[in-house]
Amino acid sequence: MSAGSRVECDVVVVGAGLAGLTVASRLERAGCAVVVLEARGRVGGRVLNQELGDGLVVDVGGQFVGPTQRHVLGLAAELGVPTYPIFTDGLTVLEIGGRRHAYRKVPRLGPAQLADAGRAIVALERLARRVSVQAPWQAAGADAADSRTLADWARRNVRTRLGRFAIEAFSQGVLACEPGEVSLLHVLFYLRSAGGLRQLTETSGAAQQDRFAGGSQLIAIRLAERLGDRVRLGAPVTRIEQRSSGVTVHANDVVASGRRAVVAVPPALAGRICYDPPLPGDRDQLTQAAPMGSVIKCLAVYDKPFWRDAGYNGQATSDGLGATVTFDTGPPAGAPGVLLGFVTGARARRLAQADPAARRGEVLGSFGRYFGPDAQRPAEYVEHDWTADQWTRGCYGAHFPPGTWTQFGSALRRPSGLLHWAGTETATEWSGYMDGAVQSGERAADEVLTALNMR
Amino acid sequence: MSAGSRVECDVVVVGAGLAGLTVASRLERAGCAVVVLEARGRVGGRVLNQELGDGLVVDVGGQFVGPTQRHVLGLAAELGVPTYPIFTDGLTVLEIGGRRHAYRKVPRLGPAQLADAGRAIVALERLARRVSVQAPWQAAGADAADSRTLADWARRNVRTRLGRFAIEAFSQGVLACEPGEVSLLHVLFYLRSAGGLRQLTETSGAAQQDRFAGGSQLIAIRLAERLGDRVRLGAPVTRIEQRSSGVTVHANDVVASGRRAVVAVPPALAGRICYDPPLPGDRDQLTQAAPMGSVIKCLAVYDKPFWRDAGYNGQATSDGLGATVTFDTGPPAGAPGVLLGFVTGARARRLAQADPAARRGEVLGSFGRYFGPDAQRPAEYVEHDWTADQWTRGCYGAHFPPGTWTQFGSALRRPSGLLHWAGTETATEWSGYMDGAVQSGERAADEVLTALNMR
Repeated sequence: MSAGSRVECDVVVVGAGLAGLTVASRLERAGCAVVVLEARGRVGGRVLNQELGDGLVVDVGGQFVGPTQRHVLGLAAELGVPTYPIFTDGLTVLEIGGRRHAYRKVPRLGPAQLADAGRAIVALERLARRVSVQAPWQAAGADAADSRTLADWARRNVRTRLGRFAIEAFSQGVLACEPGEVSLLHVLFYLRSAGGLRQLTETSGAAQQDRFAGGSQLIAIRLAERLGDRVRLGAPVTRIEQRSSGVTVHANDVVASGRRAVVAVPPALAGRICYDPPLPGDRDQLTQAAPMGSVIKCLAVYDKPFWRDAGYNGQATSDGLGATVTFDTGPPAGAPGVLLGFVTGARARRLAQADPAARRGEVLGSFGRYFGPDAQRPAEYVEHDWTADQWTRGCYGAHFPPGTWTQFGSALRRPSGLLHWAGTETATEWSGYMDGAVQSGERAADEVLTALNMR
Repeated sequence: MSAGSRVECDVVVVGAGLAGLTVASRLERAGCAVVVLEARGRVGGRVLNQELGDGLVVDVGGQFVGPTQRHVLGLAAELGVPTYPIFTDGLTVLEIGGRRHAYRKVPRLGPAQLADAGRAIVALERLARRVSVQAPWQAAGADAADSRTLADWARRNVRTRLGRFAIEAFSQGVLACEPGEVSLLHVLFYLRSAGGLRQLTETSGAAQQDRFAGGSQLIAIRLAERLGDRVRLGAPVTRIEQRSSGVTVHANDVVASGRRAVVAVPPALAGRICYDPPLPGDRDQLTQAAPMGSVIKCLAVYDKPFWRDAGYNGQATSDGLGATVTFDTGPPAGAPGVLLGFVTGARARRLAQADPAARRGEVLGSFGRYFGPDAQRPAEYVEHDWTADQWTRGCYGAHFPPGTWTQFGSALRRPSGLLHWAGTETATEWSGYMDGAVQSGERAADEVLTALNMR
């Protein structure tokens, strides 16, 4: 048992990411005494600012926000964190099979290929319409969709290289895993929870439209400022005891007791806490079957956004080496230029094992293929391998492999006695996104208030 | 940090199941000082004796052993634990689509159905021949086989109800999961590591031929007796630190230091230990992507094995409710009679949530369908839900969903600095079985001895 200080409160929150901080703020406002225990020495979880020279703040974690993400946008507005649109004016690059295409609206590829990719997307979206975000396992055809992977679906439903690429780019770019790792039912749930493939993958009018001025972590920092010393940093939770009298949550140097607890970390990490009494079998097995995606987020800073002058918007998608999705994530006008590249899925696992210079070389090599040799010589380069991050162990979020939704889905949000579950993986709107984190926090807080007759 | 006693040794072993105890015994014999830290108040892990009235010992965990399982058979012989064959003389029951068939060699089903099921098995075994047990991810076609489930393969490769049933019964009976949860590549690996489908599924001449007199746990108990106070019970490991000087392993009330450590628990549980420094991303993500199967093992004891008199061998397989695989696991002759039933996969998850009387009723109801109404009135009934067992969290072992082998397989046995990995999931022979546990322990011990220049 930990020695250290003891704290009494109404509700103990585990995790000071956007979900946990939302839970705590909402409960506090309703008159609950809360304590938030956070493993790291900082708040924000998967959102993380990094300050580079001259006050430039980049997001090495969750960054993008867009229309319909009302939960996180509402919260940011309340906290005085404005958004601004990312730069999107110019040509986009598509690299496929070693050939580079620059285009404004639609790449110059054969109509058969374009039609094939389009058909695949329409077919997936049609299937997604059957899936309820509350209970995907109850959808018509859920058993069949949850017993196959997205790769398997694609093998039967796309015929061209572009069609296959569209599916791979979606899986790698949006879920940070390969199509062969994720259940088709999970993909349908994900499409439904966000509102469609366009919503998930595009910039203007979609999930990559805007970013937060000052960095996304500012939202978490401001929430935490309000909560003050109710947030305990450097307090990884190791053990949660439930008794009829309430819960006791053990962390390094602090033991917090309350009437309820909310665990606001991804399922895989929630499974690493020791529960007494132990959790029911299905809830435990859910935590074994919800692996996190693999992302290395890479940012290169240049004196100027030279690609803009050359007519490019900084966006690229590729099936080649290095970063396979890029964005211009610098200031809307002027200097510096910032290119953001995502290395995800199998590429992330391979490059995580390379030496840093080789990794940087491969990533900047891909920037060079997309935007010319200047892209290989940034003034600064930063990267964050989220699989190596002990208190996250993967990003953007969990992807459910075949079987998880139908076998264990009902345990995802069901409280276990006095324990409630939050985190973007438990969201029904924009699951996997910052918006889902906030939505899940609001839902979990309301659950607790109802349980405590405070609502 | 734990208070409590401090122990110094050469090698710290985490887990006193068959793998961990094998590691410790082999190291001890080679002159290493070892300490084994075990979470439970007993040794054996997934093997567990239960004594019923009159000295009758039943296995509520791992039980069966058969030809070619030379590691566990050799160990048992050395420890003076004999085997005896289970009772197999008489008719077997097959219940499919609500119809009951009793047969001696082959059920009376249409030749097209029999041929279909036979073809499926031959096809799987042919595919398995390509897969190396050392590195399944390097097999020709590994990417394709690891991006689909067994269910998906079956949808394309079997045409009849019996064919589908053969695949389902294999997945549920052998892997304790549904065909839609497991990667085809994992199935091929599993077939290869055991030597074929017949080896995995049959009694005489195969994996269910014999059991250990006195119960399988006796092997673990005798190993632990030899190790004496080197085995610390009630010591769940929470933290493993690696420094250049060696490892420090923290458990309740004991801190053990050594030059190396061997973690001999399933990947999902190994992931619940806190490592300092943290494990590499791929090793951590492996632990997120290797869920355990779901088994409730049920045993009913009767005054006499009445089914034998009626000409039955106590074996049944079914696609209906309750236990879908049964065996006569009583003494070879005389009284009492013992029927063993496995509830696995989706059925185990459903019945785990039922109340105990309803669960017992459904299991005994299935025994009644197979062997007559007397089977519904046992003198004793015991069951063990391995998903609820905090220090196992599922049985028989881990099944890898699509993607795990190809994305993370190389991290399964690769040592992480001074840490080595054992457990039946890491075996190359009879992975998932007691034999695999012993084989993995021998391999891990040899790894450590080589690393310490003691071999």
